[in-house]
Amino acid sequence: MKTDLKKHNWVPWMRRVLHLASLAYGQTSPNPLVGAVILDSQKRLVGEGYHSFAGQPHAEVEALSQAGSSAKGGTLLVNLEPCCHQGRTPPCTDAILKSGISRVVIAVNDPDPRVSGKGVDLLRQAGVEVVCGVLEKEAVYLNRAFIFRNQTGRPWGILKWAMSFDGRIALPNGSSKWISGLESRENVHSLRARCDAVIVGGRTVRIDNPLLTSRGLSKKEPLRVVLSSSLDLPIDSQLWDTKPAKTLICYGPESDASLLDSLPNGPEKVLLEKNSPFKLLELLAQKGCNQVLWECGSNLATTAIQQDCVQEILLFLSPKLLGGISAMTPLADFGFESIEEAITLKELSSFRKGEDIVLNMLLDNHL
Amino acid sequence: MKTDLKKHNWVPWMRRVLHLASLAYGQTSPNPLVGAVILDSQKRLVGEGYHSFAGQPHAEVEALSQAGSSAKGGTLLVNLEPCCHQGRTPPCTDAILKSGISRVVIAVNDPDPRVSGKGVDLLRQAGVEVVCGVLEKEAVYLNRAFIFRNQTGRPWGILKWAMSFDGRIALPNGSSKWISGLESRENVHSLRARCDAVIVGGRTVRIDNPLLTSRGLSKKEPLRVVLSSSLDLPIDSQLWDTKPAKTLICYGPESDASLLDSLPNGPEKVLLEKNSPFKLLELLAQKGCNQVLWECGSNLATTAIQQDCVQEILLFLSPKLLGGISAMTPLADFGFESIEEAITLKELSSFRKGEDIVLNMLLDNHL
Repeated sequence: MKTDLKKHNWVPWMRRVLHLASLAYGQTSPNPLVGAVILDSQKRLVGEGYHSFAGQPHAEVEALSQAGSSAKGGTLLVNLEPCCHQGRTPPCTDAILKSGISRVVIAVNDPDPRVSGKGVDLLRQAGVEVVCGVLEKEAVYLNRAFIFRNQTGRPWGILKWAMSFDGRIALPNGSSKWISGLESRENVHSLRARCDAVIVGGRTVRIDNPLLTSRGLSKKEPLRVVLSSSLDLPIDSQLWDTKPAKTLICYGPESDASLLDSLPNGPEKVLLEKNSPFKLLELLAQKGCNQVLWECGSNLATTAIQQDCVQEILLFLSPKLLGGISAMTPLADFGFESIEEAITLKELSSFRKGEDIVLNMLLDNHL
Repeated sequence: MKTDLKKHNWVPWMRRVLHLASLAYGQTSPNPLVGAVILDSQKRLVGEGYHSFAGQPHAEVEALSQAGSSAKGGTLLVNLEPCCHQGRTPPCTDAILKSGISRVVIAVNDPDPRVSGKGVDLLRQAGVEVVCGVLEKEAVYLNRAFIFRNQTGRPWGILKWAMSFDGRIALPNGSSKWISGLESRENVHSLRARCDAVIVGGRTVRIDNPLLTSRGLSKKEPLRVVLSSSLDLPIDSQLWDTKPAKTLICYGPESDASLLDSLPNGPEKVLLEKNSPFKLLELLAQKGCNQVLWECGSNLATTAIQQDCVQEILLFLSPKLLGGISAMTPLADFGFESIEEAITLKELSSFRKGEDIVLNMLLDNHL
């Protein structure tokens, strides 16, 4: 009970910490989102900061440098356990101990195996009081992509689609411009800004010739990824111009790689061990992606779900009736024989964008 | 401005009137939903009532009988213009004049051509002050089915379906039990209680063998209607037992009516001029239906929409992924070539039933 009350008192400051952390959403990969607040010994705010970009100072260091000598005897609040290893920047635990901070309040332990409790131990051994678990659930939610990548070796996958009220993602003739409204399409740009990569299949490149950028909403445009088995790709796609954003073409051993010779040099081309969403996401994790967006057609989307490469769904439901017996639907076949086999979803949030209803769901096995 | 203020003062009482009217939702057809409130000359509540069932006293008469002599010099508030014709009960205008009421406040004029302004004229000619248009929009919404039937000669049509997140109403093997949750299915029972008829096609009878009742939620179970062109109907359907509710089988001139001989005698069988939703709804309007519920498959639903027999849609969206390339979707083909041809919907309301999201939409050309 004592511990719970102790935690409770830090909740308002930890909310501020989470808010600070979220300011860099989509910009910090492969690092997590981290915010920090320093209170002096009288619990007055004397410093705050957040991690803005991989290679830039960690949140704790930002906040400590703002606090200066006022940190002595004070409290550091941070949403993720401070690191205790040398990365691109020195360990944060060193800076904390040096500052004379006497209490550290943490939301959630770092899942990175190089830290994972070691940061807390080191601080406690040095005589610093450590309170853990303040707004833990909220902090896990904020860094769900980073945590998932650390646990599985693959980035967190978001699958989005725009669908009419009668479950169609296109007309029988393939036309899909535009099922969702302007506000929804703008929302997709900001969604891309929060992701490290956007993935499509070859068919989407052939039919839609998409640009797949955040339209400048992100300082760091997501990597545009084409996963193709046929490598039957058009010569003049918008994706081959890598000035707006980098492009990666992935394929498997069964593909005829000579087809790539006719494409421009801009995009990176990578042969995967196997042409599969799973192998692709392993590669993208190695490339530093915490979170990826699937903007593909129904076949690739279905395989991605089957290979546990989708953790979250964003449905843009448009108040229109399209009809069309042969019209495209968002997913292909799972082979279910009974409704009880269906994949269940858990609601994260729902909101409106113009006339559209946007439903954000979690695949039930996650979080 | 004077008139607007005059109306404004009656709004709270008119809300009470609309609430009273709504108490008999689904029970009054072919009559409208009507509530009435009587205030005495000091504006104190002295009587109220609502029309509970066709053949029962009108709301005005109920309220006047409660008010007795206190009605003299008082105000009657009623959501629909009082009738001035002899129906199953005497004209309400007679009772109003007899009571000595000096002011009548009305939300909306009666669309019934036998009334339609004549009731107001008659009252004014007799020296009664009449205020019209108080909460008119809300009153039109409440009686949209009655008004639509008076304007078109066909009942208001509601189409409902339960759909997975990926736009499926069944698995490829036809299994659909249950896509929506328990709470949604209970909601469908109360939806049936608010309708005068429930319509399915022959295929739904063959595959689902549905009961189509409100499970006793309505004092007057809706008429269960089967519209079939093949008349290939099973001998042992639950619908042929007409103890729980009446059943009507409709077919067109091209059908082989001799197939009906093998069916039990309970259901009424009617040959339509043409096997079409439009002709069926004309018949159902003649039978006193104000509002009908389409619980049919995609082909009949699509034809019903094309023939302007659907004004409102209720989508039960279930947080599940079913997949299935050949799985059923809610609607068949409209033949649209461009998204701009799509039928647009306007949101009426949205709510939750258990885990499901229920979206109530109006086809854009109505209300």
